[in-house]
Amino acid sequence: MTFANLDELLAAVTPTDPPMRAVAQERLDSLTKPPGSLGRLEELAAQVACVQGDPKPALGGKAIVLMAADHGVTAQGVSPFPREVTTQMVFNFLAGGAAINQLAKHAGARLTLVDIGVDHEFDAHPDLVAAKVARGTADFSQGPAMTREEATAAILVGADIAAALVADGVGIVGTGDMGIGNTTAAAAITAALTGADPVAVVGPGTGLDAAGVSRKAEFVATALRVNAVDASDPLGVLAAVGGLEIAGLVGVLLGAAASGACCVADGFISGAAALVASRMAPALADHLFPSHLSAEPGARIQLEALGLTPVLELDMRLGEGTGAALAIEIVEAACACMSGMATFAEAGVSGAE
Amino acid sequence: MTFANLDELLAAVTPTDPPMRAVAQERLDSLTKPPGSLGRLEELAAQVACVQGDPKPALGGKAIVLMAADHGVTAQGVSPFPREVTTQMVFNFLAGGAAINQLAKHAGARLTLVDIGVDHEFDAHPDLVAAKVARGTADFSQGPAMTREEATAAILVGADIAAALVADGVGIVGTGDMGIGNTTAAAAITAALTGADPVAVVGPGTGLDAAGVSRKAEFVATALRVNAVDASDPLGVLAAVGGLEIAGLVGVLLGAAASGACCVADGFISGAAALVASRMAPALADHLFPSHLSAEPGARIQLEALGLTPVLELDMRLGEGTGAALAIEIVEAACACMSGMATFAEAGVSGAE
Repeated sequence: MTFANLDELLAAVTPTDPPMRAVAQERLDSLTKPPGSLGRLEELAAQVACVQGDPKPALGGKAIVLMAADHGVTAQGVSPFPREVTTQMVFNFLAGGAAINQLAKHAGARLTLVDIGVDHEFDAHPDLVAAKVARGTADFSQGPAMTREEATAAILVGADIAAALVADGVGIVGTGDMGIGNTTAAAAITAALTGADPVAVVGPGTGLDAAGVSRKAEFVATALRVNAVDASDPLGVLAAVGGLEIAGLVGVLLGAAASGACCVADGFISGAAALVASRMAPALADHLFPSHLSAEPGARIQLEALGLTPVLELDMRLGEGTGAALAIEIVEAACACMSGMATFAEAGVSGAE
Repeated sequence: MTFANLDELLAAVTPTDPPMRAVAQERLDSLTKPPGSLGRLEELAAQVACVQGDPKPALGGKAIVLMAADHGVTAQGVSPFPREVTTQMVFNFLAGGAAINQLAKHAGARLTLVDIGVDHEFDAHPDLVAAKVARGTADFSQGPAMTREEATAAILVGADIAAALVADGVGIVGTGDMGIGNTTAAAAITAALTGADPVAVVGPGTGLDAAGVSRKAEFVATALRVNAVDASDPLGVLAAVGGLEIAGLVGVLLGAAASGACCVADGFISGAAALVASRMAPALADHLFPSHLSAEPGARIQLEALGLTPVLELDMRLGEGTGAALAIEIVEAACACMSGMATFAEAGVSGAE
């Protein structure tokens, strides 16, 4: 294992070099365009420059890590889709038939699929990382979803996968999730860590009606009370009301940052992972890129808590890493401008008068 | 020439087949994802499906047509950059040093650069289409920027270029512009065709201060009065207060649509071209894709008038086709999902209960 334990992982997440920010801005302002006219692209490229310590940043390899797991809460009817869909979708990912297969390919990103907690024993498959911590979580309206040890184990699985990708030339790692029931877990984490009302953070997920959303909010409120969650203990919150794929994605984000790479949080599920990860290691912020504003209502609360402005607002709510894959394309395009453009001096173009 | 005259071009812009919309929606709802969960991607892919008459759409080749021209209004100090920058930037495009060079390459789009009205005699160059209609426009605060014949000639240049690209396998054509002074022309067209107050449509362009923006608004108001513009005569508006590159881009949009392809309007300058084109041929709407919301304030007014919701909001205001290139990537990713994903039946995934 790259990281012997959680403390070692967290200690390895460090801020980027502050002087590079000024160097990056100077280069951006020297390029053949009105200052600032590439808008958000300039911010994104400058952030990559700071992560890489290079005013001509290049992402190199790109990856999406998609973690799949099952949830005990599915026994409570929090999703219109049956629990078996988690397993069925893993087979769909392996066959290349899901949205993320198309979008990762379009972005030129490799897709690493991880069984970190699916309630099914898969045969060995070259495209499936077998890293099951448990066959799904427990119903967290009755007690904790998992133990702190299980949550920690899942984090370290994710961190090691991210570190291995970075060692193999990947410069940006996006997160993706699959797990029927996981918007309930993500909502519970978001409410626990931000203090937001459960009613404000729950949403239709894969398609609940208004009555279903209302029941889901009550369920989350009950879970927060039963588990006596403590916002100052992010690992405890994750273990109590999280999911194994969410814990794995906490590790992916931390592991990418600890390895000196960029990371991109996808939508609402990944946003919950980003919240937990940033509470554990605030320096994650320097490495973390937003992707899109999920249509799930709690996503906005997560992004505000993280201080992130989404790159894309496309009304998506699928998960799987679909928003991260699209955002990686934008970040890469931003780097292409910053690295490939000529300066006013190089091109012999007159500046503003 | 593909189009003998303007009437022939406009007649060739026809609505897409209405029944395909339902076929496209049926396919989207059969794919392995909660219905609607790909948000805007589903709308974009469905629109391409309608243009192509195929529920498994694929863009094929992609192109950005970048039209460059000079403007008589530069004599009035409407830009902080000197007029020579138009010519200098053409050389920068040819050398590959501008933002659009990087972004077109990133999108896998070919870049067609056209001198349709630059105030410089370029030597022949394999990457520069020599199609100069005039060496820039006249100062439209004194009278029309160009004649109706010049505007028509520029439109037909653009239409022929787009048609040739489509004949060569391009399925989507984005527009781009270069022309110091052209935000003034775009603002004048926008005010003339939408009835918006000049104060609401002018902005800093490449970097005017507040006093400069105020003078620019007065200048636009004067130009609209001097030229007695008539919103019901879009060609007249284009000739009176437009620019040669804007006229050329009107032709690019119309020519792509007339050839059965998709077209993407870039930012504020291209938005003015899209307004003119859609007034000339309302069926353009079926073929036209928005790209981004330019930071230039009049862009929002244009998009509202066109009934378009931008795909991207990245605070960009560079032109050149930079926003179109990014949007083409998103549209292509949307098509990849619609065409490449498995259906619930194909993947053996259970649907919602």
